[in-house]
Amino acid sequence: MTVKINENYLLLKSNYIFAEIDQRVDNFGKENPEADIIRMGIGDVTRPLPSAVVSEFKKAVLDMGDADKFHGYGPYQGYDFLLDQIIEKDYASRGIELSNNEVFVSDGAKCDTGNIQEIFSLDNTVAVTDPVYPVYVDSNVMAGRTGAMSKNGRYQKLVYLPCTEDNEFIPELPAEQVDLIYLCYPNNPTGTTLNKAQLKEWVDYAMDNKSIILYDAAYESYIQEDNIPHSIYEVEGAREVAIEFRSFSKNAAFTGVRCAFTVVPEELSGFDSQGNVYDLNSMWMRRQTSKFNGVSYPVQIAAKAVYSPEGQKEIRESVDYYMNNASIILRSLEKIGLRVYGGVNSPYIWIKTPGKMDSWQFFDLLLEKAHIVGTPGVGFGPSGEGYLRLTAFNSLKNTEAAMARIAKLQSEI
Amino acid sequence: MTVKINENYLLLKSNYIFAEIDQRVDNFGKENPEADIIRMGIGDVTRPLPSAVVSEFKKAVLDMGDADKFHGYGPYQGYDFLLDQIIEKDYASRGIELSNNEVFVSDGAKCDTGNIQEIFSLDNTVAVTDPVYPVYVDSNVMAGRTGAMSKNGRYQKLVYLPCTEDNEFIPELPAEQVDLIYLCYPNNPTGTTLNKAQLKEWVDYAMDNKSIILYDAAYESYIQEDNIPHSIYEVEGAREVAIEFRSFSKNAAFTGVRCAFTVVPEELSGFDSQGNVYDLNSMWMRRQTSKFNGVSYPVQIAAKAVYSPEGQKEIRESVDYYMNNASIILRSLEKIGLRVYGGVNSPYIWIKTPGKMDSWQFFDLLLEKAHIVGTPGVGFGPSGEGYLRLTAFNSLKNTEAAMARIAKLQSEI
Repeated sequence: MTVKINENYLLLKSNYIFAEIDQRVDNFGKENPEADIIRMGIGDVTRPLPSAVVSEFKKAVLDMGDADKFHGYGPYQGYDFLLDQIIEKDYASRGIELSNNEVFVSDGAKCDTGNIQEIFSLDNTVAVTDPVYPVYVDSNVMAGRTGAMSKNGRYQKLVYLPCTEDNEFIPELPAEQVDLIYLCYPNNPTGTTLNKAQLKEWVDYAMDNKSIILYDAAYESYIQEDNIPHSIYEVEGAREVAIEFRSFSKNAAFTGVRCAFTVVPEELSGFDSQGNVYDLNSMWMRRQTSKFNGVSYPVQIAAKAVYSPEGQKEIRESVDYYMNNASIILRSLEKIGLRVYGGVNSPYIWIKTPGKMDSWQFFDLLLEKAHIVGTPGVGFGPSGEGYLRLTAFNSLKNTEAAMARIAKLQSEI
Repeated sequence: MTVKINENYLLLKSNYIFAEIDQRVDNFGKENPEADIIRMGIGDVTRPLPSAVVSEFKKAVLDMGDADKFHGYGPYQGYDFLLDQIIEKDYASRGIELSNNEVFVSDGAKCDTGNIQEIFSLDNTVAVTDPVYPVYVDSNVMAGRTGAMSKNGRYQKLVYLPCTEDNEFIPELPAEQVDLIYLCYPNNPTGTTLNKAQLKEWVDYAMDNKSIILYDAAYESYIQEDNIPHSIYEVEGAREVAIEFRSFSKNAAFTGVRCAFTVVPEELSGFDSQGNVYDLNSMWMRRQTSKFNGVSYPVQIAAKAVYSPEGQKEIRESVDYYMNNASIILRSLEKIGLRVYGGVNSPYIWIKTPGKMDSWQFFDLLLEKAHIVGTPGVGFGPSGEGYLRLTAFNSLKNTEAAMARIAKLQSEI
């Protein structure tokens, strides 16, 4: 006998896409040390933490050095002081009622969207939009819920819901019945949205098919238009069929601070092979209490400060700043004849690659000729081939410089 | 079709033990609001963060509010400034060479010891000491590596290595061949240790059987005696067979801050069903990059400060403080005729329950008559029945008060 590896890992076709990009950029940087590279690839923010957050965060750190105010292990789901704010400001304000035991604070929506599949059987059929945030796919591959990748770039057994120019990036309901459906709106990577009526079709589908929707709303704060739901629970019936993931990363610059939360309503249920019903809230609680130990106390205090009037004002300013970048990118690229999507309710701009270029060719062109790092669309799935993602998370100055550089490439694109 | 749950969760026999204790203590507290409950159950520290840590932590938080010093997503394995300190101060100082790509910073040893099994096949045979930290067992049950729990309190397919008074808490090498072996030294919950020769037997076993040892050294800083290894890599050959888990929780009061790390040497390998060899370092890297997003930047700065001369001095003082409590507990309980173990190189004291009392009866006696919260030994496995764990993590004052209360129970025990 010898130690055997999880062979599902061998099915993974590529390095995690962002690691691959890092490597290409590193190599380019080493060969071209003078190049002023502008990073518009990874969805990382550039503006600092809001001052209202820093101030409370700092106080909590000082408290941790005081025996009377020190906090060790916290409550499993997060501190009530944070849960209360989330429920009041993110949900009650939109007419959604949640109780504290339905919200689970965590160290990131990436972790939660990667780990959530653990509470479900390997026998479930999983549907993802295509293109898609790679974590949803990879976590299911690693768990063994797919087969190998076919020549068409699709993992066997996984149901792909193409989102392309042809359907205006609105996924169609699956022809077959599926059990778990990952939806991310505002969408990463395409930057597109579903309006309430469109999202309702998915909730209705899930209710009819006893499916569960895993709804990633990490980019919720970028929504500008009125008819776009901020939470799936704005749609009637969603409490019975949807888990929602939220994050402080993109609204409050927590990418390097780490705090997020997941909502698992009490009505949600799944079945065992005998048809017995189990509630998913308890299962996620069991998963988290057994394999996770909560979020840093000072970080939870910092997250609470996001909801203060000053914190809200500051995050609104940051979102406005990034969305100004997004509209500059949209306008600049349209001007030189590129077809661009997203960028209206989202910090992501999804570009159709020019001519016959594929995603990595366009990536390399932008890197080598304009010293701009984007993300090749094909890294998000086979229907992402022929697209490239830019983010609005850079500074205004860099965004304008990047657009000027791309404008000079007009003859090549 | 309907959503199917992970039925392995149904095999879990009890609530996570610490959640169960919380509930009993909550109930008792509600019925006896005047009771001054002393908590010696959960292994949570009570002394605040070292001042050297607070000072750097605070500075890093302020940096996060400054656009020029802001940090977003960090490197996947952790910042080099922290990795360098870990490698130099924890390992090189003991003659152990590690490179930065062999150390993975995380948000907790609980998470890492719970998640590590993901990179291994479900077909591996897993051995655990009995009693054992429940996370090792539960994470394997949830993954499907065990059968149901038998009447003897053991999960089918799991190999139990009893550690009791009979073998002086030194586990015997398994009679059958096993693939994955969880060892925790200084041990949680018994507080006992393995000396270098004893640990070498396990490394040799693993080399002979191509097994992997998952070595949890979260309590390393409590070692007082010279012949006890602080790292499994002090034993020759361990780089080829062992993954080591460390934490800042118990030495530097990071239970509510969240930082730990895991060492996966490059030599470690596992096999697929065709006998091909794969390196486990790359597999853990893949797991972490796909499902984890790193540790808070200010927290990594705080962890770095643990290694400063002032930080080291302060954590030594805290360890000494707790170890003084441990020796008070040992002496006090021996004095009233209880048989006690651990507490010499560990903050845990493992008490043989008096007379014919079982673990939960002794737990209830201490709670109801002395208002002291311990942890029932049976919660750590069937061989923990007839024992109870106390921790030295309380204040000196509370520790002394608790011992005085228990002394008054002498007639009942």
